[in-house]
Amino acid sequence: MNYSAIRYEVVDGILTLTLNRPDQLNAFTPQMAEELISAFTHASDDDAVRGIIVTGAGKAFCAGMDLSAPGNVFGLDESQQPTLDDMHERLDDPAIVKGVRDTGGRVTLAIFNCKKPVIAAINGAAVGIGATMTLAMDIRLASDKARIGFVFGKIGIVPEACSSWFLPRIVGISQALEWVYTADIIDANEAQRGGLVKSVIAPEQLLDEARKLLRRIIDNRSPVAIALARQMLYRNTAQPHPLEAHRIDSLAMFYTSVNDGKEGVQSFREKRAPEFKSSASRDLPPFYEEWTREPR
Amino acid sequence: MNYSAIRYEVVDGILTLTLNRPDQLNAFTPQMAEELISAFTHASDDDAVRGIIVTGAGKAFCAGMDLSAPGNVFGLDESQQPTLDDMHERLDDPAIVKGVRDTGGRVTLAIFNCKKPVIAAINGAAVGIGATMTLAMDIRLASDKARIGFVFGKIGIVPEACSSWFLPRIVGISQALEWVYTADIIDANEAQRGGLVKSVIAPEQLLDEARKLLRRIIDNRSPVAIALARQMLYRNTAQPHPLEAHRIDSLAMFYTSVNDGKEGVQSFREKRAPEFKSSASRDLPPFYEEWTREPR
Amino acid sequence: MNYSAIRYEVVDGILTLTLNRPDQLNAFTPQMAEELISAFTHASDDDAVRGIIVTGAGKAFCAGMDLSAPGNVFGLDESQQPTLDDMHERLDDPAIVKGVRDTGGRVTLAIFNCKKPVIAAINGAAVGIGATMTLAMDIRLASDKARIGFVFGKIGIVPEACSSWFLPRIVGISQALEWVYTADIIDANEAQRGGLVKSVIAPEQLLDEARKLLRRIIDNRSPVAIALARQMLYRNTAQPHPLEAHRIDSLAMFYTSVNDGKEGVQSFREKRAPEFKSSASRDLPPFYEEWTREPR
Repeated sequence: MNYSAIRYEVVDGILTLTLNRPDQLNAFTPQMAEELISAFTHASDDDAVRGIIVTGAGKAFCAGMDLSAPGNVFGLDESQQPTLDDMHERLDDPAIVKGVRDTGGRVTLAIFNCKKPVIAAINGAAVGIGATMTLAMDIRLASDKARIGFVFGKIGIVPEACSSWFLPRIVGISQALEWVYTADIIDANEAQRGGLVKSVIAPEQLLDEARKLLRRIIDNRSPVAIALARQMLYRNTAQPHPLEAHRIDSLAMFYTSVNDGKEGVQSFREKRAPEFKSSASRDLPPFYEEWTREPR
Repeated sequence: MNYSAIRYEVVDGILTLTLNRPDQLNAFTPQMAEELISAFTHASDDDAVRGIIVTGAGKAFCAGMDLSAPGNVFGLDESQQPTLDDMHERLDDPAIVKGVRDTGGRVTLAIFNCKKPVIAAINGAAVGIGATMTLAMDIRLASDKARIGFVFGKIGIVPEACSSWFLPRIVGISQALEWVYTADIIDANEAQRGGLVKSVIAPEQLLDEARKLLRRIIDNRSPVAIALARQMLYRNTAQPHPLEAHRIDSLAMFYTSVNDGKEGVQSFREKRAPEFKSSASRDLPPFYEEWTREPR
Repeated sequence: MNYSAIRYEVVDGILTLTLNRPDQLNAFTPQMAEELISAFTHASDDDAVRGIIVTGAGKAFCAGMDLSAPGNVFGLDESQQPTLDDMHERLDDPAIVKGVRDTGGRVTLAIFNCKKPVIAAINGAAVGIGATMTLAMDIRLASDKARIGFVFGKIGIVPEACSSWFLPRIVGISQALEWVYTADIIDANEAQRGGLVKSVIAPEQLLDEARKLLRRIIDNRSPVAIALARQMLYRNTAQPHPLEAHRIDSLAMFYTSVNDGKEGVQSFREKRAPEFKSSASRDLPPFYEEWTREPR
């Protein structure tokens, strides 16, 4: 892969994705969006990647959409009059993909569909899409220099990147409304008090702590079980009835039990670390694809 | 408008709705319900109203349903045998509206549909419908004299006003169950610890703080972007898949970007306050009505 | 009832269910699962039971699935190739019930459908299914000796018992992901900080505190109103639109108002304790069955 707006580095199963336009505070561009979508899509099926950390190069995490570009910063074709029907019937039509679909949302949907755990290591300013892209990541760690802002209201636009789906699931509906309404830039401690970040860490230790946490999540673990658990937690809780979770639980438990679960139980009995053999790219159960298909 | 159970006062874009039966601790009556529905419906499309504060006159916020009225306090026609089918097929039938539909719920649905941010300034006792009506308001501030109780169980009835939809989204399912089960009257600090109120404020500063917060939400902001963001947060997160949020995000971002967003970006570049021109009554995008239509 | 893996004891309206294999740290077996399903199903319609406490005999609450049994601990018929269709079309087919459906989920669905409040008194280790079964209980109290772990990942399997539906509703999606990913054993204080348990209690007072809390929930209360409130909170908040809550609220308020609600209002006016006459086994409103039917 040949990326320019991000860095893609895999070490010992950990992919570190670094937003890499430090001179522009890693401001988000259409190029960065396409590279992030490519990176998450690729990593999801690359068995060499067991978990993902996203961080920013230099002082910022991501200062939001790059507004310095001339012309229409949102890449919209203003002659279009998109409708709700278009968003159902023509979602993959190139004119809609390029001219209408929210770029940040295409990124967060790629993160949502990823089979690997994702940790945000927020090293500095995370504003606009820089804040909302982290909501689709599973756990957020923040440097004490992090500043987070859902600032869309200040320029007359709306929160995007499916943030209205994710944010209330993380911090509750009232905290979500408050942060979106005020469009305030909050510091790391306020973000932690509100439930948005797990912990606040000295800048020089942020990446180390993210790696330590991720190692505890991926080492001696089954890639298939992790992929299933990730999708189960996001998808099942959003269903109207727990029976829908039960249907998936049953199939997921069946398939993991007759595969990696056997080694898991045996290693537990023998008081040794398990050696799981499954691959998230090859061994996901047959129901996975149907279950995770996007709704029309 | 000619209200008697509430006061309707607009100053500098802020509508203050005051529950105004202080001698009855602002106990809730059918009259008050109709006036609140009228007020929220009117304010939603009145461009002079940018945000709404709800508070109570005198010592209480709202002491619950007025049980002092003679006869059937719930206004039910006991000869009816309403069914689940009725609630789908005959929802707008006057016999169902008057005799069956929960009055508190008709109020909170009017609040839910409102295009303006709503802050509850809970100045004293908020009990029964006095507590549940605040759940549809976006942010709750409490005087240190506030007392909040979901007391329905004490008189053999159930929580209403769509509180079972809102409360777990604010405080989580277990805290919601506990407060409804115990039917306890909790003080402002316990409400804050549980995540129900944002802050606890000296009584004499409560309204000032509510106004300050609301000014930060509405000043120099796009009425269309605010209306969209409010509905997006409540509606999108309740969908089973983030792609549903993406469909709405894309349309909302498209329409705001080619309208108020242009002034937003330009003012940002010119380092000045934006001057948004849009109107929440006239300029909501075409998809808004279809998107926000009530489900059959 | 003749149980061997659990004890079933009713005193003054409180059913205490004690997981009762203390020499095996109350490890979960198919027998225990069937007894729990039977106990919750029976108690749901037994008017002598007003509320339920679940605890463990001896030092542990439940140390998880009993892995000491020889053979296939999950009871699966590995020759089966179950599909998502099977989980819709053949859910009650004995081959699917016995060989595919997650046993823990059958237990938590029985708890979910129960008409009585349920409190978990977590007296010690609650691991695997010992942790997830408590998520369907309304409120969790923990002894300071409690240790809770969603440890499935350590043996290559996935969280079950509909925990992916319940856990994010209790603690938010990010805390849920973290606990499931790390598979850590957390102590009672961390569980409380994360919002999983209401309070941490000295071991010798745990059951007393659980009983005191349950008495405040059931004494002088309407069994019908409690059953409705319980189901309303779990089911309504999971709907995509608050109007669905309004339909149920309206019917539930109608039926309780013309029944126990009359005594409730009268006793309130007369400043005496109410004497409710309704029965959760006989007097649930006609819409209850249709409303709570499992989705296909």
